Amino acid sequence: MNGAEGEFHTLWREGRTIKMIDQRKLPHQFTIISLESHEKTADAIKNMICRGAGAIGVAAGYGMAQAALEAENLTLNNFKKYIIKASETLSQTRPTAVNLFHSIERCLETAKEGTVKKRVKKILNESEKIAKEDLEASEKMGSIGNELIKDGYGILTHCNAGALAFLDLGTALSPIRSAHKEGKKIHVYVDETRPRCQGSRLTAWELQQEGIPYSIIVDNAAGYYMRKEEINMVIVGADRITSNGDVVNKIGTYEKAVLAKENEIEFYVAAPKMTFDLNTQTGDEVKIEERDIEEVTHYTGINEEGKISRIRITEKNAHARNPSFDITPSKYVTGFITEMGMIYPPYKENIKKYL
Amino acid sequence: MNGAEGEFHTLWREGRTIKMIDQRKLPHQFTIISLESHEKTADAIKNMICRGAGAIGVAAGYGMAQAALEAENLTLNNFKKYIIKASETLSQTRPTAVNLFHSIERCLETAKEGTVKKRVKKILNESEKIAKEDLEASEKMGSIGNELIKDGYGILTHCNAGALAFLDLGTALSPIRSAHKEGKKIHVYVDETRPRCQGSRLTAWELQQEGIPYSIIVDNAAGYYMRKEEINMVIVGADRITSNGDVVNKIGTYEKAVLAKENEIEFYVAAPKMTFDLNTQTGDEVKIEERDIEEVTHYTGINEEGKISRIRITEKNAHARNPSFDITPSKYVTGFITEMGMIYPPYKENIKKYL
Repeated sequence: MNGAEGEFHTLWREGRTIKMIDQRKLPHQFTIISLESHEKTADAIKNMICRGAGAIGVAAGYGMAQAALEAENLTLNNFKKYIIKASETLSQTRPTAVNLFHSIERCLETAKEGTVKKRVKKILNESEKIAKEDLEASEKMGSIGNELIKDGYGILTHCNAGALAFLDLGTALSPIRSAHKEGKKIHVYVDETRPRCQGSRLTAWELQQEGIPYSIIVDNAAGYYMRKEEINMVIVGADRITSNGDVVNKIGTYEKAVLAKENEIEFYVAAPKMTFDLNTQTGDEVKIEERDIEEVTHYTGINEEGKISRIRITEKNAHARNPSFDITPSKYVTGFITEMGMIYPPYKENIKKYL
Repeated sequence: MNGAEGEFHTLWREGRTIKMIDQRKLPHQFTIISLESHEKTADAIKNMICRGAGAIGVAAGYGMAQAALEAENLTLNNFKKYIIKASETLSQTRPTAVNLFHSIERCLETAKEGTVKKRVKKILNESEKIAKEDLEASEKMGSIGNELIKDGYGILTHCNAGALAFLDLGTALSPIRSAHKEGKKIHVYVDETRPRCQGSRLTAWELQQEGIPYSIIVDNAAGYYMRKEEINMVIVGADRITSNGDVVNKIGTYEKAVLAKENEIEFYVAAPKMTFDLNTQTGDEVKIEERDIEEVTHYTGINEEGKISRIRITEKNAHARNPSFDITPSKYVTGFITEMGMIYPPYKENIKKYL
């Protein structure tokens, strides 16, 4: 694609530079962006050049590593100030995904003692550890989740919880990849996922590349295929899971969960340990990000001359609202697919046991 | 708009010509299309230049009137053949909205006896009667539905069941118009309604023109606002209602109905007598139209140079499926708003009583 061949990670660090796939331009252009400072990394998270709970967490960890390297010649006092300020900059990018805050917290925690040199080394190590854990967790969720998938299943997924959202296999897509590799005949129903179309742009792109059978459907059609019994299970990712098992995820997840319950279809959430937030009791305590309404009124794609073009769908001065996430109460969740094993109800007790 | 001022009907007949607003180009361009034969009218229905159950019904009636005028100088035998053929052409445009078949049937029925001249006159009269009834029904649904709307309500609507879908006030939008006129403070949540965005393009445009407060939301966000108790009721239109009260309507209607039930929100369907189909027992007997997948993979809107432009959102060879309608089982419907009054459960008995 665009002369780029082979396999790429979603993001990685080379010295003081972070490189990442520009996910805003997929599936039309494959571009690697270089971010030369932690401020630029923060901007990239904010502007959704990379998105997805896991990828955001890894990017924030690498952003802390950049900050540590930027400050390695300062005095201890100034180093500490610099790192605190960098952690604030990185924190103020996106409010919902808890992986972001967990990664930053882990990097701060590890660097509480020792000389500047030692602290820098510890932050670098911790950020690499976060990335490594993300990879390993994806793999484990794949094999654990695969056991739930029966031959012949139609599986609905919402948004992109694939390799682009995490580093290697993804969360929700990892069991699907495992099932396909094992030769199970499956069909993936890919919710378009308005407003940013991460389903039709990113998930479909990933599945197409790996030859996994899929159909993009508009978000309105998921219920239709559930009622027709063509969808047999739902697997989604999560941006945050609170201690009672409520799931904060891409807007529309709640709708699919209610529809799954009504149609007696199993509804699974695939998420690593990092996504659980024991400090928050229920989903309704989580701040829901409202993004620019132009995400609703405008679309970007490829025009008839093959160029990336932005168009307006609505009237010029149309009113709109654009919440990015919603809360799925835990009662709709059949089980959590985690790298530590399945978590089933009662969630309040069982989540604590695993974490 | 485009130099056009004042109020327009969605469609009307001038002699052998039908004129209609090109709804595909709204809200960007206001264009009146002239259709000089019943075949052209059939194409216009098929290509959704006009859409919405009522408007389709009126267009089909006028199409029959065109055919009658086209054949007025034929012998009786040839006239009869011509009219039958025209009725087939008009029938084979869109399979779901029952108004289409009702209108054609009424025009055929009225012209069973008499000379050619008399039959032509009867068809012309019947088609005007259909249009007039459509107008009157909209008005009555407005005042009956208005009684359900409380001051301060947030009201969700899906697709466009407004003046563009019917001739004057619409079905679902008619009670909303009445409530607003009466001075009730209401806010309309307008489902975007993918894939063709009739909500964000047409319903929002109608509400904007009349100063009724609204917000476009992506279809994924309706559940979110229901859970937050910002949406207090749902009103939708229908393409067909079967004798047990099942509702065939725009894809996504079923999802909203399930979500309304789960959140204990009243779910109303506004539809005139013409939309009820006593010959069909349940919704699952109705053929669901599957349309071109490019409705899912491509979007049309206004580009940055102000021109209408079509863009592709997905990868070039992406797979998709595109059912246009779904079935909402009658158990999810709180009541039907009709021109004859409200119809409440048990539907099997009560629908028969009214029709």
